[in-house]
Amino acid sequence: MRSLYFDGTLQYRTDVPRPVPPPGEALIRTKLAGICNTDIEIVRGYMGFSGTLGHEFVGVVERADDAPELVGQRVVGEINAYCGECATCRRGYPTQCPHRDTLGIDRRNGTMADYFTLPAKLLYPVPATIPDEWAVFTEPLAAACQILEQVQMRPTDRVIVLGDGKLGLLIAQVLQLTGCDLLAVGRHAGKLAILKQRGIRVQLAGQDIEPGADIVVEATGKAAGFATARTLVRPRGTLVLKSTFHGDIALNLSMVVVDEVTVVGSRCGPFPAALRLLEQRLVDVEPLIQATCPLTDGLTAFEQAMAPGMLKILLATN
Amino acid sequence: MRSLYFDGTLQYRTDVPRPVPPPGEALIRTKLAGICNTDIEIVRGYMGFSGTLGHEFVGVVERADDAPELVGQRVVGEINAYCGECATCRRGYPTQCPHRDTLGIDRRNGTMADYFTLPAKLLYPVPATIPDEWAVFTEPLAAACQILEQVQMRPTDRVIVLGDGKLGLLIAQVLQLTGCDLLAVGRHAGKLAILKQRGIRVQLAGQDIEPGADIVVEATGKAAGFATARTLVRPRGTLVLKSTFHGDIALNLSMVVVDEVTVVGSRCGPFPAALRLLEQRLVDVEPLIQATCPLTDGLTAFEQAMAPGMLKILLATN
Repeated sequence: MRSLYFDGTLQYRTDVPRPVPPPGEALIRTKLAGICNTDIEIVRGYMGFSGTLGHEFVGVVERADDAPELVGQRVVGEINAYCGECATCRRGYPTQCPHRDTLGIDRRNGTMADYFTLPAKLLYPVPATIPDEWAVFTEPLAAACQILEQVQMRPTDRVIVLGDGKLGLLIAQVLQLTGCDLLAVGRHAGKLAILKQRGIRVQLAGQDIEPGADIVVEATGKAAGFATARTLVRPRGTLVLKSTFHGDIALNLSMVVVDEVTVVGSRCGPFPAALRLLEQRLVDVEPLIQATCPLTDGLTAFEQAMAPGMLKILLATN
Repeated sequence: MRSLYFDGTLQYRTDVPRPVPPPGEALIRTKLAGICNTDIEIVRGYMGFSGTLGHEFVGVVERADDAPELVGQRVVGEINAYCGECATCRRGYPTQCPHRDTLGIDRRNGTMADYFTLPAKLLYPVPATIPDEWAVFTEPLAAACQILEQVQMRPTDRVIVLGDGKLGLLIAQVLQLTGCDLLAVGRHAGKLAILKQRGIRVQLAGQDIEPGADIVVEATGKAAGFATARTLVRPRGTLVLKSTFHGDIALNLSMVVVDEVTVVGSRCGPFPAALRLLEQRLVDVEPLIQATCPLTDGLTAFEQAMAPGMLKILLATN
């Protein structure tokens, strides 16, 4: 089958064998796969991954021996294949299971191929009213929802989202729904316009931003984002980190102590909530699509995705 | 009057004028002042402070025009002189007031002198059952209590305190009272013995420590402490930072995101709670006293305090 494969170099291959689902897993035929910044960071060395890339998808279940009701269903799926039995899973944090592997990120082949496998328990049927082009955003939208799973956001809070990348645009839309006093800051007027059209206050990075926010979400994907976020959050405020990138950064931690700031790392989130937001049209992902390319053109699509300012590039298998 | 004075170099002076309390402030005659690691960091350049050093004290109120009931009372006092009127103060975070100055740390002369002034509202009379040598620990003990003000610690939590310095020894004693499963890690068998005698499990740094703690408190006062703390906390766990030091450190923030760790900076704490713990003898500060020196020998006392492994050195004005 076809696959966008990384093992130190990114390759388009046609000789990758179709996977056979192990017990408990389903075989899924990819319809659409999304290119995420994490995929780009992996190509730069993050996580030391090798295999088929991709963790965002919408697909159709072809085979599921332990969950026959899923066969033929259009599904999205969580990306952390957890054990379900360890202390972390039993505590209710399966996405943090120490025994997990992660779709297209850590020791598990991903979705940028004709087929892949995933434990059936991670799959969610997609309501018929949600088109494929929206459903493929479920995973990053769930990651945006995860902020509210970890941090209470009050309608009276002043909140700043730093970063107008794909994830930043989803986060701003989700946080807007809390009624908070929201400001989205980014580098691209065109991308900020998507938020502005929805009534979200926006500002170009580089201009003075009023500090003293109750909550700042760092979603720039850049090392410099933390220092900016740090200057904007009030003492005793909360700084949410969503960016993952390769390498260390230099920090003055004493100022975190003196201002008693809380820093919260935030990653994967709840799929059912994301599907509800899509179905109820409370979030609009359509303007976030830059282009849809055939999987055959995957290498070109990746190059395009790595250019600054790009929005979501989808890979289609048809 | 006499003063231990810092303006780029540390000096013992006898020519510093006795301060005149401005409106709202009390004149306090120092009985004992404690040398804290923050004082040592200030001498190394932290905060860019100049003036009389010292923020830990027990003293007697000599004059308090707006609070005459305090005159003659033995007192301890909070160190952040807040405005009481800004949004931060009204929110209930006076120690974070952006208009504050801080006793012996930031634009306010400190306690290592015969006299100093402090707003009367910051003073707490010391119960007669608490001797001077205990009362002078109220400020650092309040800082230890501040951890529980910010983070819920459950009796079932596994908690690690890193650092057996003066603050680390107070923190371990305070956290022990929650009934949690506590381990204190330090570099000095003699200091850890103080905790061991109280039934706290201790371990020398450098030996293998079982990771996966729910909460790790970093109180080593060293830049390397964060990285160690990071490896010991479980995913979704909490890392409390108590160390302030001069300079930046290099960090891998992506791992904070991936493990969804919460990092909480923690500084000054509640004096009434600290006085209750001292009065009810729930915490023992006596073994933490290395030596009591006359203020006249302040320079020697500071040199002694800067040597590795020293416990609390007190300066007496009598």
